Amino acid sequence: MNESWIDPVKSEELAALRHEIHRWPEPGWAEFASTARAVERLEREGFKVRCGAEFVKPESVMGAIPREVEAALADAKRLGVSEALLARMGGLTGVVAEFDTGRAGPTVAIRCELDCVCVDETKDPAHRPNAGGWASERPGYMHACGHDGHQAVMLNLARWVRANADRLSGRIKLIMEPGEEGSRGGRPFAESGVVDDVDFFYALHVGCDVPAGTVIVAPEKFLCTTKADLFFKGSPSHAGMQPEVGRNALLAASTAALALMALPRHGSGMTRVNVGWMQAGEGRNVVPASAEMRIEVRGETEAINALMYREAVRRAEGAAAMYGCTAECLVKGEALDFKADPEAVEAAEAAAKDAPYVERVEHYMNFNGSDDATVLVKRVQARGGRATYIVVGSTLEAGHHQAAFDFEEKHLETLYAIEKALLRRHCARN
Amino acid sequence: MNESWIDPVKSEELAALRHEIHRWPEPGWAEFASTARAVERLEREGFKVRCGAEFVKPESVMGAIPREVEAALADAKRLGVSEALLARMGGLTGVVAEFDTGRAGPTVAIRCELDCVCVDETKDPAHRPNAGGWASERPGYMHACGHDGHQAVMLNLARWVRANADRLSGRIKLIMEPGEEGSRGGRPFAESGVVDDVDFFYALHVGCDVPAGTVIVAPEKFLCTTKADLFFKGSPSHAGMQPEVGRNALLAASTAALALMALPRHGSGMTRVNVGWMQAGEGRNVVPASAEMRIEVRGETEAINALMYREAVRRAEGAAAMYGCTAECLVKGEALDFKADPEAVEAAEAAAKDAPYVERVEHYMNFNGSDDATVLVKRVQARGGRATYIVVGSTLEAGHHQAAFDFEEKHLETLYAIEKALLRRHCARN
Amino acid sequence: MNESWIDPVKSEELAALRHEIHRWPEPGWAEFASTARAVERLEREGFKVRCGAEFVKPESVMGAIPREVEAALADAKRLGVSEALLARMGGLTGVVAEFDTGRAGPTVAIRCELDCVCVDETKDPAHRPNAGGWASERPGYMHACGHDGHQAVMLNLARWVRANADRLSGRIKLIMEPGEEGSRGGRPFAESGVVDDVDFFYALHVGCDVPAGTVIVAPEKFLCTTKADLFFKGSPSHAGMQPEVGRNALLAASTAALALMALPRHGSGMTRVNVGWMQAGEGRNVVPASAEMRIEVRGETEAINALMYREAVRRAEGAAAMYGCTAECLVKGEALDFKADPEAVEAAEAAAKDAPYVERVEHYMNFNGSDDATVLVKRVQARGGRATYIVVGSTLEAGHHQAAFDFEEKHLETLYAIEKALLRRHCARN
Amino acid sequence: MNESWIDPVKSEELAALRHEIHRWPEPGWAEFASTARAVERLEREGFKVRCGAEFVKPESVMGAIPREVEAALADAKRLGVSEALLARMGGLTGVVAEFDTGRAGPTVAIRCELDCVCVDETKDPAHRPNAGGWASERPGYMHACGHDGHQAVMLNLARWVRANADRLSGRIKLIMEPGEEGSRGGRPFAESGVVDDVDFFYALHVGCDVPAGTVIVAPEKFLCTTKADLFFKGSPSHAGMQPEVGRNALLAASTAALALMALPRHGSGMTRVNVGWMQAGEGRNVVPASAEMRIEVRGETEAINALMYREAVRRAEGAAAMYGCTAECLVKGEALDFKADPEAVEAAEAAAKDAPYVERVEHYMNFNGSDDATVLVKRVQARGGRATYIVVGSTLEAGHHQAAFDFEEKHLETLYAIEKALLRRHCARN
Repeated sequence: MNESWIDPVKSEELAALRHEIHRWPEPGWAEFASTARAVERLEREGFKVRCGAEFVKPESVMGAIPREVEAALADAKRLGVSEALLARMGGLTGVVAEFDTGRAGPTVAIRCELDCVCVDETKDPAHRPNAGGWASERPGYMHACGHDGHQAVMLNLARWVRANADRLSGRIKLIMEPGEEGSRGGRPFAESGVVDDVDFFYALHVGCDVPAGTVIVAPEKFLCTTKADLFFKGSPSHAGMQPEVGRNALLAASTAALALMALPRHGSGMTRVNVGWMQAGEGRNVVPASAEMRIEVRGETEAINALMYREAVRRAEGAAAMYGCTAECLVKGEALDFKADPEAVEAAEAAAKDAPYVERVEHYMNFNGSDDATVLVKRVQARGGRATYIVVGSTLEAGHHQAAFDFEEKHLETLYAIEKALLRRHCARN
Repeated sequence: MNESWIDPVKSEELAALRHEIHRWPEPGWAEFASTARAVERLEREGFKVRCGAEFVKPESVMGAIPREVEAALADAKRLGVSEALLARMGGLTGVVAEFDTGRAGPTVAIRCELDCVCVDETKDPAHRPNAGGWASERPGYMHACGHDGHQAVMLNLARWVRANADRLSGRIKLIMEPGEEGSRGGRPFAESGVVDDVDFFYALHVGCDVPAGTVIVAPEKFLCTTKADLFFKGSPSHAGMQPEVGRNALLAASTAALALMALPRHGSGMTRVNVGWMQAGEGRNVVPASAEMRIEVRGETEAINALMYREAVRRAEGAAAMYGCTAECLVKGEALDFKADPEAVEAAEAAAKDAPYVERVEHYMNFNGSDDATVLVKRVQARGGRATYIVVGSTLEAGHHQAAFDFEEKHLETLYAIEKALLRRHCARN
Repeated sequence: MNESWIDPVKSEELAALRHEIHRWPEPGWAEFASTARAVERLEREGFKVRCGAEFVKPESVMGAIPREVEAALADAKRLGVSEALLARMGGLTGVVAEFDTGRAGPTVAIRCELDCVCVDETKDPAHRPNAGGWASERPGYMHACGHDGHQAVMLNLARWVRANADRLSGRIKLIMEPGEEGSRGGRPFAESGVVDDVDFFYALHVGCDVPAGTVIVAPEKFLCTTKADLFFKGSPSHAGMQPEVGRNALLAASTAALALMALPRHGSGMTRVNVGWMQAGEGRNVVPASAEMRIEVRGETEAINALMYREAVRRAEGAAAMYGCTAECLVKGEALDFKADPEAVEAAEAAAKDAPYVERVEHYMNFNGSDDATVLVKRVQARGGRATYIVVGSTLEAGHHQAAFDFEEKHLETLYAIEKALLRRHCARN
Repeated sequence: MNESWIDPVKSEELAALRHEIHRWPEPGWAEFASTARAVERLEREGFKVRCGAEFVKPESVMGAIPREVEAALADAKRLGVSEALLARMGGLTGVVAEFDTGRAGPTVAIRCELDCVCVDETKDPAHRPNAGGWASERPGYMHACGHDGHQAVMLNLARWVRANADRLSGRIKLIMEPGEEGSRGGRPFAESGVVDDVDFFYALHVGCDVPAGTVIVAPEKFLCTTKADLFFKGSPSHAGMQPEVGRNALLAASTAALALMALPRHGSGMTRVNVGWMQAGEGRNVVPASAEMRIEVRGETEAINALMYREAVRRAEGAAAMYGCTAECLVKGEALDFKADPEAVEAAEAAAKDAPYVERVEHYMNFNGSDDATVLVKRVQARGGRATYIVVGSTLEAGHHQAAFDFEEKHLETLYAIEKALLRRHCARN
């Protein structure tokens, strides 16, 4: 019966849409234009779409940077995004779109990411986006991780769903997450409940140092991580006249930095900690009244990571108390560990085997990094759903997050084929 | 013979010039318009004038902030400062003007300051500069220390010198120092040699918490101080993948900050130390490769201050070495202690007694702060010259460096009268 | 009428008693034999005597070292100190003896110290105690501060009081304080109330770098100080197997040490801080579960010193909290600042002028150290009494607290004469 | 031909000798009586024996504690160890004994340990050594790791070798290493060259949390470790009078402690670090002039461990430099990672299979600890020899290094049987 499936998408359409998206990169929780594009296209294909504040709880949002949000919002308005749509978003981004076939069947979700990376795209004329005239038009921002491609595939997949609506059963959910960089979107999306009814959940990523021709369907060693910003508040005084009056937030932060880096190893698994950025103080001759730092911890398991963060907070708060200051620790991002479900792995393996440009399908790789899809996966699994994470190898021009990043565009067809195959497997009408 | 002295200056002219200067504040080593005004006026009065690079050694300049210098230079050009004059300055500021009477006699120098403070002037309509329409036109900058008045007095004094040229002997030097704030101008001016031939040296300041009606002619307890910027260089690595590869400059700086604040007290006199500002690191997940901090030390004597700075450098360098980093310590400002010479004090006392609005002339006050006039004073004294520092009390609207700072303008007349009297005392032709 | 005073004491008796005391030095709060000697002699002279727990509140005692107390107690028993007397002491030391003339008049107190220093007396045969056969018989302990002489004078003074009882009015209090070294006895004695009824209070000291022939009657710059021991408690774990389980008291203590030394200077006066000793940890491969440190702070005024100690405690407790440990801060000694009362100074001046071997009586010297007589002085002054501190200069063989310390024994006569003269002045019967 | 082997050892003799050794425990590099016993017994069996300074280079010795060495030496003299033997030892301990069959064949070495642990043996009457009257007679020391049993087996094995001399070929080396605790003996023994001619090398250990009945013949995850003592030297001064003069070794050590615990994780493998003990300073009011700490680092590989130690030294030296102090870092112990050779594993497996009380022979266990036999193993392997480490499981009364430690004595027979079988396999005369 497979022969009867309709495919309305030409492969050059995948690349064309990716180019459009690539030109207008938006960082985490500032993806207003990206959200608008997705909403319009998905509604056109008959999906029931919710965006931004329509489903995300504002209090759950982590790591939005006001300056970036405001700039992107202003840009989106200038670009012509409709006021009505922006009103629906209510200052938040992200999309969940559902296609209900009206027939009994499983709920299958596929997730992609909306945000870009904060990096200036290379000016090298040999860089394909430059050569092709579709480089980033927002200085300081670039789709340097492949999320442009992921979106292009998903929005075209919606066309395929509509075209084949009669052949499908169950419900299809397309989930477009903001703020994956910094692991800022997973937790808010999980808490919104968008995956609570999902039976099968898939997240796909291109690249990831996997060679072209290989697809991985059960990667391991996703690291749990917590990103946090720490704010130390003291009070100022003239360092010459009344040094005893001030409450030295710079010393509190410096003491905390040393103690954070000295968090103990863990006997049961790998840990990491970093104080990556710190700023403290005002004038040269003023006892510093404020300090801020950006940290991250990691752990091989959720328990180890949670212990690392708990102890980090304890050390920061103690350091603040030492100097009569206060410390506020705000979580800015979170990703978890990951264990693929055999049923989902099996489906992914079958789907990948027949996809174009695939020579090898393998189960394991050490991911050795973090993706907050894991937060959604845990939520799905906690309710009895099945999930896996699929990596589609590709030869990269430069590594992820680098100014010259690019992947082989033919692998968009691989992603598209895998996604279609997954839906056919789970939702083909009997 | 005193009756025969000519006075070409009306008291409202002092205030008017102060208002003009107040409107265009320029920070340390960026006083291009201020320098230009002074050069033009002083040359008009027959002084032999040198400015900027004509006498300052570029390598001696401390604490110029490139961003501020460039902005002020661009503003000065827009304002119409002549290219020829800017060429003479050669990117540096400051003025030394000499009036040689051609007759044997002492060399008498008076010093004022050119720079403003980095503070936004209050918008309060009751603030006199606002009411009078002569508030700062450069946001973020304000003459909030009285240097505008000092300059206005000195430039008018030049008119008096010319008018009374026949009655004077010896040589009169007017010294207009850039970058007094942060103690950045004294050392370079001293090293330029501009006071090496000076027999009598006077620096005057309005305000300083001295009550209106009082003049102090031999203040004490000027604190020696060294201001420095410290740069720590390490190298980055991915904090998750290769934490062992990076060289952590943030830890070096934090360790140094703690150790600097723990510099020991001194058994023989007061000390101070402050790490007022610090920034370190790049991204949250990168081992920090750079850090910068702004510090100051103080000591009751030159020896104590020098020890404090020497030990600060030792601690910074050791901290850098701990983490495989390097530390660079750049002196950005310097002021010394101060001991008035009896001959100069006597002259100042006599000059102040007859000045308008003066009720009391006193010798001592605890200055409890720093002024790099002390560096020039030491240079003068080392060559056998005499010097003192004169404080003219005034009721202030708000303290020095505050957004609502203002002094009683009638005290410009006091300053002007004292300066004239000092010149008459030392240089009156027999 | 002065001629009629009786003097039952020969000058060689002062030296002889000093030698006896010198042979048996006892450290702070362990002066059992010294207390016994004093009690017996003072009761023999008709004084009403209280000792140890008869008036000292056990809970007020600071800085007693159990090991030293036990050793001295055992030694005292071996030496033949009566069980009855030891029972009266109740494990505590110190003496207050009162001679009530039965006639109206002021209460005059003189205070001396009972304790020795923890230093091994030199073996140099030229050292007078060695030559004379009266060197310390308790290894590790020595009367190296002059307290042996102070006691010898006071116990002989009691003989003089009894001999002249008919000529005296008012009440005479002889106060023999334990644990002056480390400032451990003053506070408990003050809190016992022994000086609460005192009208005139005098503490005398020989030496103190004052030249022989000079007596100082109104010394200045006594430093306030607080001595404290800090105990950090964590919990152990195997550093290789379970490094995350332990609570690292060594890190808590190290963090505290840095932060204590970084306590800010004070704008209103001199401060000092020292972490003089620290021990932490158990085995090389165990996460350290305990740490201990000995610290002191000083301040030019009581308020500054109190702030220093309060902030020290804050920093120690905060550091403990950082690492999940607890900190206990126990005050082990305390001395205050000092201001002599004119009436007492006048009396001391008069008394000193006529004493033997005195060439000069001066008011001021910078004491630049601490003596917890100041705690008693404050208590006296708070109730309207008058007090001063008297230093009797003497040529020292070696400085205070050194193994070869000795003073000129003839100055015991000076001390004795001054004490008699003070009593005659205040208590001579009209 | 196996049937013809002679066994002169009764199993109760193994236990009896163990009891004798257990009564007289000696710590690392202080095993004088243990060395004497071994020399006498091994020479009696015809071995060529060298001991102490006869082969160990004094400059290679690590971690000997003078106080312990002196005490054990004095005890050994009292015990009647001959002067001649002590002279041969030359102040050092350890034994290497060689039996040359005079026939061509491999050189086979077995290694055991001489030293005890610094722990007080329990007084519990149920503890077998107490019940049997063979508990430790040296308070503070106990054979709480099984080394008494290892020695007892080896010394009886020598009897077997002599009894079967005609049946053997090649050379048999019995190596009795001092100071295994703290990994202090392996490196000096390796550098002495005693294993340079060894073809097969075996080290055996009883217990190690392996269940009774199981023998492990190819354990993994031996951790590389370096133990070091760090000495910081500064200079003292009076903390009140001249705080600026001292060089604060306590601050240097505290700064180092924090930085050591903050040594970065390693991307390629497990690391550990501990500052287990620290002492600093002299008196409460003296700027601390000295500090000492005991540290250890570990790493999953030799390269990682070496990096950890190199960086630890860098941090300690930098911290010392910060405060004008010096740091001396002395290695006190060292163990390496370990990889068993298949030939040795095969031999061990075969030997273990037939030993009494053995139910299971397994290859792998995670050793998760350190044994400096690994240093000897690396030396053997570097010259082409083969080696493995054999763990003989046993039910322990309490864990290794605990006061109630004991193993099942029947397993001495297992060890003995394995050692015999290894010699038969490699050295049986054809």
